[in-house]
Amino acid sequence: MAAAARVTLADVYRAHERIMPYIHKTPVFTNATFDKLIGRNAFFKAENLQKTGSFKARGALNAVMSLRERNANAAGVVTHSTGNHGQALAWAAQTVGLKCAVIVPRDTPQVKKDAITSYGAELVLCEPTPQSRQETCQRVAEEQGLEFVPPFDHHDVIAGQGTIGMELLKQAPDLDAILVPVSGGGMASGIAIAAKAMKPDIKIYLVEAEGKMCEKSLRAGERLWPNPPQFVDTIADAIRTQQLGNMTWPILLKYAEKDVFTISDADMIKGMKFAFERMKLVIEAASGAAVVAAMSDKLAAMDKDMKNIGVILCGGNVDIDKLPWY
Amino acid sequence: MAAAARVTLADVYRAHERIMPYIHKTPVFTNATFDKLIGRNAFFKAENLQKTGSFKARGALNAVMSLRERNANAAGVVTHSTGNHGQALAWAAQTVGLKCAVIVPRDTPQVKKDAITSYGAELVLCEPTPQSRQETCQRVAEEQGLEFVPPFDHHDVIAGQGTIGMELLKQAPDLDAILVPVSGGGMASGIAIAAKAMKPDIKIYLVEAEGKMCEKSLRAGERLWPNPPQFVDTIADAIRTQQLGNMTWPILLKYAEKDVFTISDADMIKGMKFAFERMKLVIEAASGAAVVAAMSDKLAAMDKDMKNIGVILCGGNVDIDKLPWY
Repeated sequence: MAAAARVTLADVYRAHERIMPYIHKTPVFTNATFDKLIGRNAFFKAENLQKTGSFKARGALNAVMSLRERNANAAGVVTHSTGNHGQALAWAAQTVGLKCAVIVPRDTPQVKKDAITSYGAELVLCEPTPQSRQETCQRVAEEQGLEFVPPFDHHDVIAGQGTIGMELLKQAPDLDAILVPVSGGGMASGIAIAAKAMKPDIKIYLVEAEGKMCEKSLRAGERLWPNPPQFVDTIADAIRTQQLGNMTWPILLKYAEKDVFTISDADMIKGMKFAFERMKLVIEAASGAAVVAAMSDKLAAMDKDMKNIGVILCGGNVDIDKLPWY
Repeated sequence: MAAAARVTLADVYRAHERIMPYIHKTPVFTNATFDKLIGRNAFFKAENLQKTGSFKARGALNAVMSLRERNANAAGVVTHSTGNHGQALAWAAQTVGLKCAVIVPRDTPQVKKDAITSYGAELVLCEPTPQSRQETCQRVAEEQGLEFVPPFDHHDVIAGQGTIGMELLKQAPDLDAILVPVSGGGMASGIAIAAKAMKPDIKIYLVEAEGKMCEKSLRAGERLWPNPPQFVDTIADAIRTQQLGNMTWPILLKYAEKDVFTISDADMIKGMKFAFERMKLVIEAASGAAVVAAMSDKLAAMDKDMKNIGVILCGGNVDIDKLPWY
């Protein structure tokens, strides 16, 4: 990774200045029942209430606006996505008046496909494998002269997601730790960069789906994931990517704790149901993973001085006609 | 109604001072998709995020705290309730350390019964008729020396609910109208008192379940409902009471518009689904009624100068294992 590509707190700050007029400053919720249950204070950052229903709006908009600043004649953008990033890029492109094409696997929930087209983007279907996504994306980019904005391995995307951490620490300055769902690692690395720069003692814990095996690689200090890249088998379609990215991996190796919270589908549903029932928030399974990580025996066994815990509710894009507990 | 019992903006203000340390100042959400759809600006007051999951926490806490101010030796409180008020009174009593008994109809959703007992209240079941509720309540009050706090026909309850209107107009000062779901009318009359005092030109529109027939009585200027009081047949268990209260009726006759929004079950579900899908908020059917009223042909046909519409999302207490569209 070139030194020029390093994302800093200053990049996050500039991203925030750039995107602030268009995104929501999402609220931070507390819940007395939850705090009593876990014996700590939880601060839920409600990115499910973000534009397009997930945090991805931040990184996508920062990328599109940065592209436009660099090249006033840019034709547009293209990406592949399990849904949230695609939806966010479509919205971001529409917001600044650029064309957008989105490559989505055939098995993406209909509600996400509809949301992408509702933002005026062209939808291109592909097979549900990382390879098919990348090949289709490259073809469309070349054919239409569009700039590829990847879901996580991108300087401006990471800086954009970092604004979550910056905002959260302004809203809840006394945080001791943050629980972040992780897929490619764009959000986790952005939050880590911002939070560690603002508060070096804060702990960043990754929350992953079963089969992702982050802890093994983090403890070894090397990428132990099998190739070619694959998806893990989880109901949380927003965190299916097994490998951290090439840009996000060194950032998380440096900043994230080696202890990783690995969450089963059944437990994600438990987390979702808590949010629906007690917080009246619609969250997707990836967010449920963070909620249940905060309720876990693993966290309960950790240092009691870690009193104030940030919990990132990364998105709320779930098909409400197919909720996983029905 | 005695002059001394009149609720004024000053009462609402004092209620707010009293309850503010314990309740949430709920956020007001906007939604670009919704605004485009209805051609006006909607401001959603998210009382579904209130303590206990509904606005009822405000009135109940104001009543309990006022009781304690008047009588430091009060034994406790009792009420009958379809759920939300009972839950709120249980929470309020627990908050100030008083005993609470709640009479609930047998057919109340289990999730509401559980919530009431989770706040430490005693649950007393009755038949699902207004008469059975009142008789059981009176018996328990006498046996245990508890003060009856009714769900709506009570000075301190109305003043407490009025804090919604006061807060909302501070958060969204340019409102031209407010859409308020109505059952006994405690919330609607409280909001009307506060909003009309702060902004005399604002319009207060009632939103009701089919069969409630408010408009007929309002237009005639007299109570045309059949006796004995009954429940209307609706999925919105929070707004089943057919008659407005004896205290709330003259307030709403004075302040509410004669045009009433009458919402079918199917349309309430449509409103709920919009909130779940596009706003990521869990709301109950009564709130869905207000959402869909804002989307209705009836509102569309009204004066285009009525640009900014407050929509009261009164609660989020829905059994998520039995969502009405499954």
